[in-house]
Amino acid sequence: MKALVASGNGKASVEDIEKPVEGTLVKTLRVGIDGTDREVLEEAEERFPDGEDSIVMGHEVVGRVVESEMLEEGALVVPTVRRPTCNCQHALNGRPDFCPVDHYVERGVSGAHGFCAEFFAEENPDYLVPIPEELEEIGVLVEPTSIVDKAVTEVFKVQQRMEWYPENALVLGAGSIGLLGSMLLRKKGLEVTAVDVVDRGHPKTDILDSIGAGYVDNRETGIDELAEFDIILESSGVSEQVFKGMGALDENGVLVSLGLPMDESVTAEVPVAKLHEELVLRNKTVIGSVNSSVPHFEHAIGHLQYFQENFAVERILDLQVGLEDWEDAFDEPDIKGEIVLE
Amino acid sequence: MKALVASGNGKASVEDIEKPVEGTLVKTLRVGIDGTDREVLEEAEERFPDGEDSIVMGHEVVGRVVESEMLEEGALVVPTVRRPTCNCQHALNGRPDFCPVDHYVERGVSGAHGFCAEFFAEENPDYLVPIPEELEEIGVLVEPTSIVDKAVTEVFKVQQRMEWYPENALVLGAGSIGLLGSMLLRKKGLEVTAVDVVDRGHPKTDILDSIGAGYVDNRETGIDELAEFDIILESSGVSEQVFKGMGALDENGVLVSLGLPMDESVTAEVPVAKLHEELVLRNKTVIGSVNSSVPHFEHAIGHLQYFQENFAVERILDLQVGLEDWEDAFDEPDIKGEIVLE
Repeated sequence: MKALVASGNGKASVEDIEKPVEGTLVKTLRVGIDGTDREVLEEAEERFPDGEDSIVMGHEVVGRVVESEMLEEGALVVPTVRRPTCNCQHALNGRPDFCPVDHYVERGVSGAHGFCAEFFAEENPDYLVPIPEELEEIGVLVEPTSIVDKAVTEVFKVQQRMEWYPENALVLGAGSIGLLGSMLLRKKGLEVTAVDVVDRGHPKTDILDSIGAGYVDNRETGIDELAEFDIILESSGVSEQVFKGMGALDENGVLVSLGLPMDESVTAEVPVAKLHEELVLRNKTVIGSVNSSVPHFEHAIGHLQYFQENFAVERILDLQVGLEDWEDAFDEPDIKGEIVLE
Repeated sequence: MKALVASGNGKASVEDIEKPVEGTLVKTLRVGIDGTDREVLEEAEERFPDGEDSIVMGHEVVGRVVESEMLEEGALVVPTVRRPTCNCQHALNGRPDFCPVDHYVERGVSGAHGFCAEFFAEENPDYLVPIPEELEEIGVLVEPTSIVDKAVTEVFKVQQRMEWYPENALVLGAGSIGLLGSMLLRKKGLEVTAVDVVDRGHPKTDILDSIGAGYVDNRETGIDELAEFDIILESSGVSEQVFKGMGALDENGVLVSLGLPMDESVTAEVPVAKLHEELVLRNKTVIGSVNSSVPHFEHAIGHLQYFQENFAVERILDLQVGLEDWEDAFDEPDIKGEIVLE
């Protein structure tokens, strides 16, 4: 069967590989491409499964069960990404998203083959989340929506410690994660402002307009020139913004960071004393959030049904290509590309 | 009656003022002095109650009820510090420590007279927490212990969102708050390391030794050279340490910041990308914590009884002076001074 295989840093191609024979077999329908896939491609050699010299790419996918002892044939499913290799309390508790970094592999991301192939197999069907038929065309958004759901769920769990009625939110970065985050925060009834660096009229700002979220062009207006916010969702990967965001939190506000920096050697001059004083005097919180587990995939289904009905969420997926044209899905979309398999 | 009154920036003296006549009247026994008092003295003019030209100092106190309609005469009491001027959800919920900065005054700190006088009065006896007789001599430690209790309680409330079994803690700054924090974390069974900049053999390191906590001299060893920690309690007021501490958190670790910087204009070059990446990939949390409310004062009683029995906590109070010698309580102690009234 055909698969998108990365065999060296920056080097990938469509190859013929063996069709899997064990576990639940799933026919791949669509594979979404995001910043993580670009990073995997760039650093492919660090990501190969142990003892192998390539990795099948793709971690956002929707497929249909072909053969399974546990799941119904024909069921539409989305797999989770992380597979624990430990037996720690987080894995046992169904929350491998909290596992330490040396406790897992991630399919299509690091240490395990991904889903961008005609078929993929899953040994443990617990990692395959059934989704309704109406989400087939936007099925690759289940995984990124689960990431946003985890982040926002953690914010509210952290704040159960106080009487807290957030009213507004700032979203840093209006890529697919930032747009899905804006939709989720709008669904919760919050006033939302998103920050990016595109011109007004870009498909991102059109989507923000249509969901009733504000847009700020960060080339014109700094984060410190905005109001203060109860929730800040960082999905830009621009590390300075995490620290600027700390300063833009309102009383008892929470910043949740989801982005990953492109270059981890970046340093910046930070007004540490001002941020420190405000952190303390105003009971602020900053949390990091990575990955997501089955409950977040299940929540994502409900979110996407709402987004489909109210926000025309499918506009986030603005480029569909066949497997042979995979490079276009990485390079060409305004927001997010996907690979549609035969 | 005599009182310690600050009437200008850096200018305080013992003055005769009128004895209060309304509310519950309390005879002052002891007043503790900490960094906040030094700051109040330095910036006294910003701290005067509205329309007045001086402020009675002192926010850590233990006293005995003289006249009250609600409390027993002779009862040993410690007042809380913050008095809400709002009617917001936090004040209504008995948690003015979560109130926004423009929602309160603080006795002896900002906008309201403090307790360093022969008597003080309290209109609302809910703010007077009765304490057992055996804590009389260390009664001024109830307030700082409540500050530490709030911080550590918030850490555990934040982490109720996951299965979390912290094993070790780092305490930044071994002043009275840092030492009380070390004691509380030792009481909880954690391995504790405290960081300060005093020579071994200083009373601070003797106390740390005696409670089974490690000591690191930050002039010799950087925070980044230590292990990683599940909990970091910052009480140093050194803002760079908040950011260095973020880097020293273990998986799912929490840094709680309590210190206030002396100079809020300080900036520093921070490895923002490295901190950002680790924050996200390892689900780290940073929270600020300020002030404390009645429940924390109540918890502090139990903590201090334990500290008294097991940790000879009274050694933190290493200088007692009379009211006329108040300046010595600010300038002379190795750890913490107190003013003992007649």
